[in-house]
Amino acid sequence: MNNRSYAILGSGALGAYYGAKLHHAGFDVQFLLHSDYQHVCQNGLKIESKDGDLSIQNPDAQPNTSEMRPVDVVLIGIKSTNNHILADILPPILKTDTTVILMQNGLSEEEKLAPILDSPEQNILGGLAFLCSNKIGPGHIKHLDYGQVRLGHHAPNNQPTGITPAMQAIESDFQKAQIPIELEEDLHLARWKKLIWNVPFNGLSVTLNTTTDQLINFPPTRQLCEDLMDEVLAGAIACGRTIPREFANYMMELTDKMTPYRTSMKIDYDEKRPLEVQSIFTNPVLAAEAAGGTLPLIKSLSAQLQFLDIQNRQHTPA
Amino acid sequence: MNNRSYAILGSGALGAYYGAKLHHAGFDVQFLLHSDYQHVCQNGLKIESKDGDLSIQNPDAQPNTSEMRPVDVVLIGIKSTNNHILADILPPILKTDTTVILMQNGLSEEEKLAPILDSPEQNILGGLAFLCSNKIGPGHIKHLDYGQVRLGHHAPNNQPTGITPAMQAIESDFQKAQIPIELEEDLHLARWKKLIWNVPFNGLSVTLNTTTDQLINFPPTRQLCEDLMDEVLAGAIACGRTIPREFANYMMELTDKMTPYRTSMKIDYDEKRPLEVQSIFTNPVLAAEAAGGTLPLIKSLSAQLQFLDIQNRQHTPA
Repeated sequence: MNNRSYAILGSGALGAYYGAKLHHAGFDVQFLLHSDYQHVCQNGLKIESKDGDLSIQNPDAQPNTSEMRPVDVVLIGIKSTNNHILADILPPILKTDTTVILMQNGLSEEEKLAPILDSPEQNILGGLAFLCSNKIGPGHIKHLDYGQVRLGHHAPNNQPTGITPAMQAIESDFQKAQIPIELEEDLHLARWKKLIWNVPFNGLSVTLNTTTDQLINFPPTRQLCEDLMDEVLAGAIACGRTIPREFANYMMELTDKMTPYRTSMKIDYDEKRPLEVQSIFTNPVLAAEAAGGTLPLIKSLSAQLQFLDIQNRQHTPA
Repeated sequence: MNNRSYAILGSGALGAYYGAKLHHAGFDVQFLLHSDYQHVCQNGLKIESKDGDLSIQNPDAQPNTSEMRPVDVVLIGIKSTNNHILADILPPILKTDTTVILMQNGLSEEEKLAPILDSPEQNILGGLAFLCSNKIGPGHIKHLDYGQVRLGHHAPNNQPTGITPAMQAIESDFQKAQIPIELEEDLHLARWKKLIWNVPFNGLSVTLNTTTDQLINFPPTRQLCEDLMDEVLAGAIACGRTIPREFANYMMELTDKMTPYRTSMKIDYDEKRPLEVQSIFTNPVLAAEAAGGTLPLIKSLSAQLQFLDIQNRQHTPA
């Protein structure tokens, strides 16, 4: 058994997949489960990956963190819409030198973690998952494609940290678990780069009830995607990060080559789950505004998504 | 009988209502009908107004303009999405001094009429109807409230014309027909002013599938309405027209007092009819851009509406 211990908070499409990879590599991995807890106790975690079966017959699963052992690494795989529970559920599993990895999209959510940690040796890392994985039933995950993690280190005021020992330790573990990983010297920059895709495609797929291919094959909405990408670039610049326009072009080319894709936010919407509007849309607008910039198109999309999110969960399906 | 003759192109909720008012005041009014022609020949035009019955048992109705007599005044009540047919259907009913009134929302559609007219004595007027009227069946209109017309005179490059004799002639007729009318010295300004309400509420009621009250009672979308109003004001300024911000505030206050309202564009959307995106959204963006301005929020909304419009009419209802 490798010696670093892990806790997976949120054992869904993302958390259960990475947790299972670490478990099968010999790490001590505990899984926090909520609605699927009873089902997983009886049936185990079923994880079908394109690379082979990753199921765990008897996972070390718990329904709350007060029944879990403190760990070396916490991997946060819950949706950012539930981040308000972290102040309650994190402390029971923290050691004085625990590393917490926030594996979510969007911006600025690490800042809310800092007050929860009380030891200077505790580290907050941010992870960006390039993963195509779905939960298709209770305790049942289907990994379709990709899986790379890009990992950076959070610092006050989003200062770049370069490569840190905490990052290298995780890199070593993930490599043992055959999880592709790249280290990012500047987490804030990496987060802005991922927003270049998430803002137009997650946002418009919900407001326009559609898939990526439809959005980019209709010239006016393709242009709107480009304009939203330009605003993400402008937001990054306001926050002191320059991303070449070519990177946005490359994201558009990748999307041209993708098969028609229903974004994660669209899936959340269709399933009547809360949308990650705050982390992916509102926080970037606020970050840019705090730096003296404005992102009117993203702010507009944010308002539309907040409205749709509330309406969507007020009404029961017909 | 009053001596000016009228042709109503598009005898729907708007055209049939104003045509019936003129008919009952003794004007010679011909009605162009399309899908309802046979029904109206057999059953007449049924127009229920809050002010009393305006039905016409045997209207002078035709299925195309080549069977109509040339008239002194053409009142265009078709949707702007059908303006491309005007080059074909207008000429048969024009005299050398006919007045054409384009009774539509939006901007810049008068410019397309100019090449159709060939006599310098022919006039193009623009009318803005503040009317709450619905078509509830074939040849069957229900007038619910309001009805004022604001009328201006179109001139090349949207120059203000002041009050012209052509406008005064229509004013006189409309007054005889008990149609409330106000003359506008600057048609282009009047059109921008009407956009202050139409852009946010027609647009967002479609993208967010909602009514006016929901939009203004949720702070983020209320702010978005305000931001869109500000962009209309900016577009007007780019085109040389200054509208005080207080006018937008007044429009918002009126909307606060309105009963929950389904906009005309939302009704069109729900009925799977084409949306007037070009005249209400795209044309103002183009007009501002031609004058060196940009209206990014309205352009974004225009792209979303164009997308929804096409999708809406591609799919048959479930």
